[in-house]
Amino acid sequence: VRLLVFGEQAHFAGLLVDMPQGLSCVQASQTVLMDEKPSAALRHKRESSMWLALAAVASGSAQACVSAGNTGALMAISRHLLGTCAELERPAICKPVPTATGVCWMLDLGANLEASAQQLMAFAQLGARAAQRQLGRPARVALLNIGTEADKGPATIRQAAALLAESSEFAYIGFIESGDIFSGRADVVVCDGFAGNVALKASEGAARFLFSQLREVLVGSYWARCVGFLARPFLQKLHTKFNPSHLNGALLLGLQGVVVKSHGGADVEGYVAALEVALSQVKANIT
Amino acid sequence: VRLLVFGEQAHFAGLLVDMPQGLSCVQASQTVLMDEKPSAALRHKRESSMWLALAAVASGSAQACVSAGNTGALMAISRHLLGTCAELERPAICKPVPTATGVCWMLDLGANLEASAQQLMAFAQLGARAAQRQLGRPARVALLNIGTEADKGPATIRQAAALLAESSEFAYIGFIESGDIFSGRADVVVCDGFAGNVALKASEGAARFLFSQLREVLVGSYWARCVGFLARPFLQKLHTKFNPSHLNGALLLGLQGVVVKSHGGADVEGYVAALEVALSQVKANIT
Repeated sequence: VRLLVFGEQAHFAGLLVDMPQGLSCVQASQTVLMDEKPSAALRHKRESSMWLALAAVASGSAQACVSAGNTGALMAISRHLLGTCAELERPAICKPVPTATGVCWMLDLGANLEASAQQLMAFAQLGARAAQRQLGRPARVALLNIGTEADKGPATIRQAAALLAESSEFAYIGFIESGDIFSGRADVVVCDGFAGNVALKASEGAARFLFSQLREVLVGSYWARCVGFLARPFLQKLHTKFNPSHLNGALLLGLQGVVVKSHGGADVEGYVAALEVALSQVKANIT
Repeated sequence: VRLLVFGEQAHFAGLLVDMPQGLSCVQASQTVLMDEKPSAALRHKRESSMWLALAAVASGSAQACVSAGNTGALMAISRHLLGTCAELERPAICKPVPTATGVCWMLDLGANLEASAQQLMAFAQLGARAAQRQLGRPARVALLNIGTEADKGPATIRQAAALLAESSEFAYIGFIESGDIFSGRADVVVCDGFAGNVALKASEGAARFLFSQLREVLVGSYWARCVGFLARPFLQKLHTKFNPSHLNGALLLGLQGVVVKSHGGADVEGYVAALEVALSQVKANIT
């Protein structure tokens, strides 16, 4: 693997002293800010590290781009420079979430607030291909709904179900309720960006809340503190497993190129995870 | 409090032997089955315990109805017998979820898959009134969205925000992300039934998953089992707190009467919680 690092000169100070092998720096004269409007970045930041990195993917001099920057700008610039596949106006955000048996790829997680039946079908195809390589078998794909019976939910989701059921690329397993995402029943869960974002953040919020409540219970008395001390390594293990930075690397699917969004607050381990997601997608020839 | 218990004679066997004071049995000749279509129940179960109990509320001989039966049928029959308030075609399902500082009332949780800005406003008014009595101050109401900035999310939610901001009945505090529901920042979270159902079930699923993972970590070795044994009372405490049966009693809001849905699998303590929810709503003169 060769790494190209894009950034303003000032950010390279540490790297240039002791440049690791297989790594080159590409200087940019601008940086897209975290709170910048995507439309503004698209218009005024054509010399930014983000723009140049995505342009390298577009020109073929790089096979994938990983960024921990502004998500909206990354989507807008990657759509502009790489283009999307036919059914999609914008890429779908896809992330692996931990389950009882491995991971489940959820999409869309917020790029497309609404999605037609055709778009949900496109999400299913994209998610299935992203998951398949890692699974070594056709992915089991489910549609997020508020019940599992065929007559449940909005018309769009029921229409999408009819499309997905006809696919031979993946195994469509029907509707899934959001409480069942973590069961391992599905490899890919398909939904519009609003529902996906709500489901993912609700589960992250619930996990955070439970951990904080657990911490509170384990300082309630002297004895509780003792038990808490003994239990700490086990809780730590669990906490690490569910730490978003260790499940880092959201795919922007539906682009004519591999683009991975790292969490802005990812640590080294987390950023490596995002790089590995990009690598696996390149190997899977996802585009 | 006087309790009227509606059911078929066969179900009263135990009660009739040693009838507690303040409790009377009302015999019904039918029962709405758990898997019965609401429309079928509405047409063919006019002598059922559910129908007679709701008819008692409609006639004024009871002030509230609590049922652990078929949710769809309960909604359909209560709408038919009690009627809904102006903006709503059907009642909104509203439940208290635990937060870092108390509870947060979420609605709608699945009765109305879509909701207009006006309907979201009606949900806000209903939820705020339900919460206010228990709080003793105006409720802090938030709209569920996928970002907190004013320009985020679907047009309907942004239009609803404008309506809610003008209310003097409650304190509108803006958008809330689903991960923040448990923070205690809002007393009432308003959303359409699809988003609410997805958020609630995702958080319940995540909590279930975490508990199961915790149990798994605590049987991984002899030492882990020892720590697990010591930690059990603390985990049990937490588990009890988050057990849906102890947060039992979903309100069917927007009806011309108090109707509370108990979880079908509630134990005695859970059913008492549902009865207490009904009682507090009657005292608050919610209708």
